[in-house]
Amino acid sequence: MNRRMIFYILGIVLLIEAALMVIPVAAGLIYHEKSVVWFLAAMAISLVCGALLRLLKPKDTVFYLKEGCIATAMSWLCMSLIGALPFTLSGQIPSYVDALFETVSGFTTTGASILADVEALDHCMLLWRSFTHWIGGMGILVFLLAIISMSGGSNMNLMRAESPGPSVGKLVPKVRHTASILYRIYIALTVLMFIILVIFRMPVFDALCTAFGTAGTGGFGIKADSMASYSPALQWIITVFMILFGVNFNFYYFLLFKKWRQALKMEEVRWYFIIILFAVTMITGNILRLGGGAVKSIRDAAFQVASIITTTGFATVDFDLWPNFSRTLLVVIMFIGACAGSTGGGIKVSRFIAVIKAVGSELYFYVHPKSVRQTRLEGKTLDSDTMRSISSYFILFLLVFVASVCLVSLDNYDLSTNFTAVAATLNNIGPGLNLVGPTQNFALFSDFSKFVLMFDMLAGRLELYPMILLFYPAVWKNTLTNRRRGE
Amino acid sequence: MNRRMIFYILGIVLLIEAALMVIPVAAGLIYHEKSVVWFLAAMAISLVCGALLRLLKPKDTVFYLKEGCIATAMSWLCMSLIGALPFTLSGQIPSYVDALFETVSGFTTTGASILADVEALDHCMLLWRSFTHWIGGMGILVFLLAIISMSGGSNMNLMRAESPGPSVGKLVPKVRHTASILYRIYIALTVLMFIILVIFRMPVFDALCTAFGTAGTGGFGIKADSMASYSPALQWIITVFMILFGVNFNFYYFLLFKKWRQALKMEEVRWYFIIILFAVTMITGNILRLGGGAVKSIRDAAFQVASIITTTGFATVDFDLWPNFSRTLLVVIMFIGACAGSTGGGIKVSRFIAVIKAVGSELYFYVHPKSVRQTRLEGKTLDSDTMRSISSYFILFLLVFVASVCLVSLDNYDLSTNFTAVAATLNNIGPGLNLVGPTQNFALFSDFSKFVLMFDMLAGRLELYPMILLFYPAVWKNTLTNRRRGE
Repeated sequence: MNRRMIFYILGIVLLIEAALMVIPVAAGLIYHEKSVVWFLAAMAISLVCGALLRLLKPKDTVFYLKEGCIATAMSWLCMSLIGALPFTLSGQIPSYVDALFETVSGFTTTGASILADVEALDHCMLLWRSFTHWIGGMGILVFLLAIISMSGGSNMNLMRAESPGPSVGKLVPKVRHTASILYRIYIALTVLMFIILVIFRMPVFDALCTAFGTAGTGGFGIKADSMASYSPALQWIITVFMILFGVNFNFYYFLLFKKWRQALKMEEVRWYFIIILFAVTMITGNILRLGGGAVKSIRDAAFQVASIITTTGFATVDFDLWPNFSRTLLVVIMFIGACAGSTGGGIKVSRFIAVIKAVGSELYFYVHPKSVRQTRLEGKTLDSDTMRSISSYFILFLLVFVASVCLVSLDNYDLSTNFTAVAATLNNIGPGLNLVGPTQNFALFSDFSKFVLMFDMLAGRLELYPMILLFYPAVWKNTLTNRRRGE
Repeated sequence: MNRRMIFYILGIVLLIEAALMVIPVAAGLIYHEKSVVWFLAAMAISLVCGALLRLLKPKDTVFYLKEGCIATAMSWLCMSLIGALPFTLSGQIPSYVDALFETVSGFTTTGASILADVEALDHCMLLWRSFTHWIGGMGILVFLLAIISMSGGSNMNLMRAESPGPSVGKLVPKVRHTASILYRIYIALTVLMFIILVIFRMPVFDALCTAFGTAGTGGFGIKADSMASYSPALQWIITVFMILFGVNFNFYYFLLFKKWRQALKMEEVRWYFIIILFAVTMITGNILRLGGGAVKSIRDAAFQVASIITTTGFATVDFDLWPNFSRTLLVVIMFIGACAGSTGGGIKVSRFIAVIKAVGSELYFYVHPKSVRQTRLEGKTLDSDTMRSISSYFILFLLVFVASVCLVSLDNYDLSTNFTAVAATLNNIGPGLNLVGPTQNFALFSDFSKFVLMFDMLAGRLELYPMILLFYPAVWKNTLTNRRRGE
């Protein structure tokens, strides 16, 4: 294991984090908030740690997928540990575990909060919360790849470890260029959303936080009622942008370079829209009887479906009060999640398409036992290696899910609460149902459960393997052997 | 499609069912119950239908897995349709949908009941309910295979369609002999249990019903409090036998023929006992604080764990009142289920071992990308075909599960109720949690939901494919084409 390289990358990540804290510092200065000093303190710590780690200049910059996973997992952990400092140092979130939960929830674009009264926070704190979503949405290592160059396939291993979805599409031969194209699309869409929100009369600060939260598919609101108090027009704008940020970014790349045929060939994007349309129709029909009229019902259904399937987690109504059919559908789309290669979480639409096709083949085989039928996705044959890795992902996801529900159930809350709390964190959504519904928060859980849920948020965002490998003995055993060999 | 052969098999199945109704008729005569005439009526109908269907003598007896699946699904449906008649004709279960639910629940060894007051039923009705468990436990087609001979691989296709587990072990080269050996072990164990229960002073009628229910891992009780009123010794005996009937029957075959090494090599059986031991320990620790003392806690934990993991469904306490950690663990072992090749339901221990090993290989691959490691189960390599079929099973199971929960949620009961109602029927257990807990029943659901749950019970017992294929257009389209060709 190339330990020095991992530390080196950690160093750069911390330096970047220090730089990114300029944004909340600016907000603090504009609003004359005293708590801004704690951001300066955190920046200083981040700078010093980062600079020290960078001193460990690696002998070689080559590293494998294993190192990519460990570097990614540790980067996200360190970023969260330092990003949580201002909340606790300022006393606005007194418990460090709570602050860490909030920060992990931010970076992983989950949006699950432990705050009962979010409006009590300073502006700089609120902006930092929403900004962590934006940073986590595209991934800090993808950002790092866009600005530094690495040798050989090493950067690909980093990108694979952090990017969502079963396979990372290299848009252009050079990973660095791919990363920079993705970031440019991301920034452009965020700016566009911000401008439109401001045009439709959302206050500038609100618009900034909302744009960050939507772009990262995060879900931290800056108001106690999330998005309920904004005008219908603003709610529609947010709905549309949530859906847009859940689309595979390759789609935008194809559109940008006028590769219409390739864009239209993206089955995942097509199914993503079909699922959204289906869920909105079903839920609208189901909640019509609650009153409020058809227009409001469609708006509410569309907003909530877009918010849940893209794993954003904003809310305009308390969907925990909806009929059980709608609640159940929302839980189902929690797991489906957004497209691979978007900023959204969940298991991803493409994985579902792949396994459903595999089941279809199996059924076909029952009827035509002597035939051979290849399963194809997006024009490519799904070979047995890809299918094996997708099935393993499902199973591993289930195992993590079940283990988490069991551990959280030690707090003795009801099954629906535990089930949806884990679903909402592992899929990086935010709110669940019952005691963790949209008008509730996660403060009720014990510190132990909070750590379990933090693990789930990180595992969900990093697509399981990096976080699991962190606790996989063989990874570390290997290191020891290498060290003994004098490496 | 060899339609005539399917009808022919259906005919034999109905004749067998008529013969099996001798048992409740005998009970009715002994207890001088008038309702016995309705069993005679059902017998007559079954005889006439069976005889008529047998007239369609098939031209050839060869048929494929597809026909095996359809024959199996239709056999189970017809058996249930006729088996439900006495309940409704006698007026003891006035609604035919309810009677059908009860009978499907019986044959599929589920044990979910719509009866609020089971003790109001006549003896012959009670015995028939429990006896359906016993018939369904080993499978009626396996019985048929044990008594008639079929050409070539056709009988294997029937056996594969009905037997639980990822692969059917042919114990001896001839399928007919395998089926008859299995049935003999089944009968011997049932008789043994009955004798032991009677020795420990259970009334003879109770002992007969309990032995049938335990052997089939069914779960219909004949008392309102299930097994709570029996002595601790009897509860322990039932616990032990529930666990024994959840073991892969090949294990007994190996023991019987003194093939110790092969018996010890059965990883599935080993893990089955480890899981039971683990769950009992955890739950005992968790329910100790409810009071009642260590002895009672262990007994209650052991009974409930054995009952749930073997998917029997008896209860000695209302485990719905247990702490949430214990309830969650019970829900988890609902899905694990018993061993393949036992009378129990669920996903089966061996499937879980296989997928967990596959995930292990995947993790190993992350750490050692250039290595090749084969996954082995019970000494055999898990090739990619087996793994693909196991993964497909998991995915199909999940899809059926999710679709069922969504459909049942239209009744607007809470998520825990719907979730565990589907879990308890698809895994053939019986009681769930909340509104379908062990002291409740399934009568609250609408007829529509009852049909969904009946489908789940049959799908769970027949391992999904037969029931799914029944609704798979290609199966039937094929038939029409053949018919047009004048076949």
